[in-house]
Amino acid sequence: MQKPSLPKGTRDFSPQEMARRNYIFDTIRYVYHLYGFKQIETPAMENLSTLMGKYGEEGDKLLFKILNSGDYLSAVDENILAAKNSNEMVRKISEKGLRYDLTVPFARYVVMHRNELTFPFKRYQIQAVWRADRPQKGRYREFFQCDADTIGSDSLFNEVELIQIMDEVYKRFDIRVCIKINNRKILSGIAEIIGEAEKIVDITVAIDKLDKIGLEGVNAELISKNISQEAIAKLQPIILLSGSTAEKIAVLKTVLSDSEVGMRGLEEIEFIFEKLALLKIKNQIELDLTLARGLNYYTGAIFEVKSLDVAIGSITGGGRYDNLTGVFGMPDVSGVGISFGADRIFDVLNQLDLYPKETTIGTEVLFINFGLAEVNYLLPIVSVLRARGIRVELYPDTAKMKKQMSYADSNNIPFVVLVGEDEMRSKIMRLKNMETGEQHNVDLPALLAFLTNR
Amino acid sequence: MQKPSLPKGTRDFSPQEMARRNYIFDTIRYVYHLYGFKQIETPAMENLSTLMGKYGEEGDKLLFKILNSGDYLSAVDENILAAKNSNEMVRKISEKGLRYDLTVPFARYVVMHRNELTFPFKRYQIQAVWRADRPQKGRYREFFQCDADTIGSDSLFNEVELIQIMDEVYKRFDIRVCIKINNRKILSGIAEIIGEAEKIVDITVAIDKLDKIGLEGVNAELISKNISQEAIAKLQPIILLSGSTAEKIAVLKTVLSDSEVGMRGLEEIEFIFEKLALLKIKNQIELDLTLARGLNYYTGAIFEVKSLDVAIGSITGGGRYDNLTGVFGMPDVSGVGISFGADRIFDVLNQLDLYPKETTIGTEVLFINFGLAEVNYLLPIVSVLRARGIRVELYPDTAKMKKQMSYADSNNIPFVVLVGEDEMRSKIMRLKNMETGEQHNVDLPALLAFLTNR
Repeated sequence: MQKPSLPKGTRDFSPQEMARRNYIFDTIRYVYHLYGFKQIETPAMENLSTLMGKYGEEGDKLLFKILNSGDYLSAVDENILAAKNSNEMVRKISEKGLRYDLTVPFARYVVMHRNELTFPFKRYQIQAVWRADRPQKGRYREFFQCDADTIGSDSLFNEVELIQIMDEVYKRFDIRVCIKINNRKILSGIAEIIGEAEKIVDITVAIDKLDKIGLEGVNAELISKNISQEAIAKLQPIILLSGSTAEKIAVLKTVLSDSEVGMRGLEEIEFIFEKLALLKIKNQIELDLTLARGLNYYTGAIFEVKSLDVAIGSITGGGRYDNLTGVFGMPDVSGVGISFGADRIFDVLNQLDLYPKETTIGTEVLFINFGLAEVNYLLPIVSVLRARGIRVELYPDTAKMKKQMSYADSNNIPFVVLVGEDEMRSKIMRLKNMETGEQHNVDLPALLAFLTNR
Repeated sequence: MQKPSLPKGTRDFSPQEMARRNYIFDTIRYVYHLYGFKQIETPAMENLSTLMGKYGEEGDKLLFKILNSGDYLSAVDENILAAKNSNEMVRKISEKGLRYDLTVPFARYVVMHRNELTFPFKRYQIQAVWRADRPQKGRYREFFQCDADTIGSDSLFNEVELIQIMDEVYKRFDIRVCIKINNRKILSGIAEIIGEAEKIVDITVAIDKLDKIGLEGVNAELISKNISQEAIAKLQPIILLSGSTAEKIAVLKTVLSDSEVGMRGLEEIEFIFEKLALLKIKNQIELDLTLARGLNYYTGAIFEVKSLDVAIGSITGGGRYDNLTGVFGMPDVSGVGISFGADRIFDVLNQLDLYPKETTIGTEVLFINFGLAEVNYLLPIVSVLRARGIRVELYPDTAKMKKQMSYADSNNIPFVVLVGEDEMRSKIMRLKNMETGEQHNVDLPALLAFLTNR
């Protein structure tokens, strides 16, 4: 007899974990809806031709590939078989892979449905993604992303809106955060000013590590990338620039005055902060020049959110990009998006114990089963409660009282109703509060009133 | 430049399709909650050792298998490679597969979490499953199942409850259905009486085809299974038995009086109909002896739901089973469950045009963008609306009026608000109903009142 197990890096979600995950997804979804984002979903499987080459060489390796159906070996050349080259062979025996993120499937979606879409197109997507990464604490091979993007509009009001959304979502979670903003154009301006414009990627990658390896580490990395001592020297004060956002912008305006792209980035940042000042933003927002997100992808705003109370990486990230769909033959689709990391939010909420109490209450009342006559009497009553939207269980077996009460306990059911022979005769019910132990006699109207007003 | 496509048998869900699918899932979920079912989820990937051998030989072939990561060929014996036997090879290069249904993962879940569970355990699960079936109209390789099961209780009140759930869900969908009930024990009793007890599977498989191949076809199939002419003759009147459920039961009581198992099945059916009579069931419910669901799995009640207004197969099915987890080394877990076929319900709702109008309304109001000054003025107003839970968009670009109005149209946004220079000065807003074309001047309190009372 086999003892069953799960593939490593995957997990089951128990009713309690589902209730918590639903709380996270429902909150994010609710806020996305408030701002007019529309949900789409794409299949778990995509053609490998859609996925390969989009995530770098490392990403290609981390894709889960699906074996072709049927006699998948029949068409494979004997020489390829004999060569025993796993990479070569994949192309012959697998045509599909599991979704690795939500961005590439979204790009494919936009290209395939271009004629049905109205731009700007505001879409959100909350789905699992799969990566054959080495599993570790808090990192899974199946995990969830919650993306929102607005494409087909260059307006910076889209950036403002996404910042509002991040602020609103964390306000609802009661997680205190700092929303960090940067702009890729400012980074390009800096690289230009110090005369290393073509090394912008190396520079941003190095800057991105400031928190982890410190200033000396960053400088060492810049040297290793053949960036001149002179340029590195010019870079120091800029990267370590401190003070308020207004102060930073003032200094940068002087430093970047000769860089057209840099000045444009500053204008964008100023515009965004100016609009945010018109709105009631609850969380900290700051310009953070060390924010570079390693990616060669963003062309304007860059966002990152950090929890102020739990030491964990970024819990939301995003930015503006120029060319979502070029790789699929549809040029000039620009957009801006964010992605909430559901698993890390789950960890933060757990650690700070911030789930509302209602989150894990499913059934509101359990009716105890004293026997067939009692159940016959209760069936229509239970139906009346459900018709009012009250979540009710009637214990299915005439089991010992203790067992039924412990069922209510284990399932976190706050109230129990007891109706035996006496109660049937007098048409009352005993209502027990499972938390306080208090009992009251109620008739049906009183029970309904009590439960609907809770 | 590649033109992207989707793997065959898979599909994207557009915002409209998502809204409709969410309506279906939310309705089913809501009713499951009313009856105290708790949600779980399991990973998309399971070990092949969990999946293989559970769905018959054909099922094993239809499993999507995932290629092992890394240099998956390195450990494969040269002889196996040379043999070019796809089936042999799978075992060497694949250890995981995609979920094929929700029952086997649920069984695995119960065994792995047995110490955390309180029985009876009422779980529901709404997730995608994948099968490498030949795709056809209405049949996909990725589709959704919505299962609810109560395990660890033999009480027939569980059957009653699941029938109530089916009735309630279809009432909410406004789909008129017939809920068909049978009992495997009655079928066993019939086989026993006609002296072919060991051929019960052949007999039920044949009976299951009555609708498709007619009585003669069924008889021919019974002959081909070596069932005696005498037995087939005895079978005819029983299978074609008609009349009310009470009449059928009365006849069967005589016919099956010598079969202990048959009489037990009749008692169960009687109990269930007796309890249903105490409840307000809206849809037709009937005992249908031809209902056999081909499966060798059910041991008691068998359920099937048919739409009365659309010719499509069963839209919900289920039944009672004795041994959910035996194959994983945990004996004696009995239960009863149902599964809603989301894709067929989707088709029925589409065909009968039964979606509530609100289903596809996302954003409730679009604010037109007349320029920077107007947007500055509107930003805080829009925030006030969102704080009241109203779904609002502010068009991000100062585009031509016609473009913005057509955005509202395409996105099915029922109201548009126009605020230009004059309106800013007089602190009113022009509210336009997109359906009727009517316009009204409103101030903020009036707008809020109007939108919250809709």
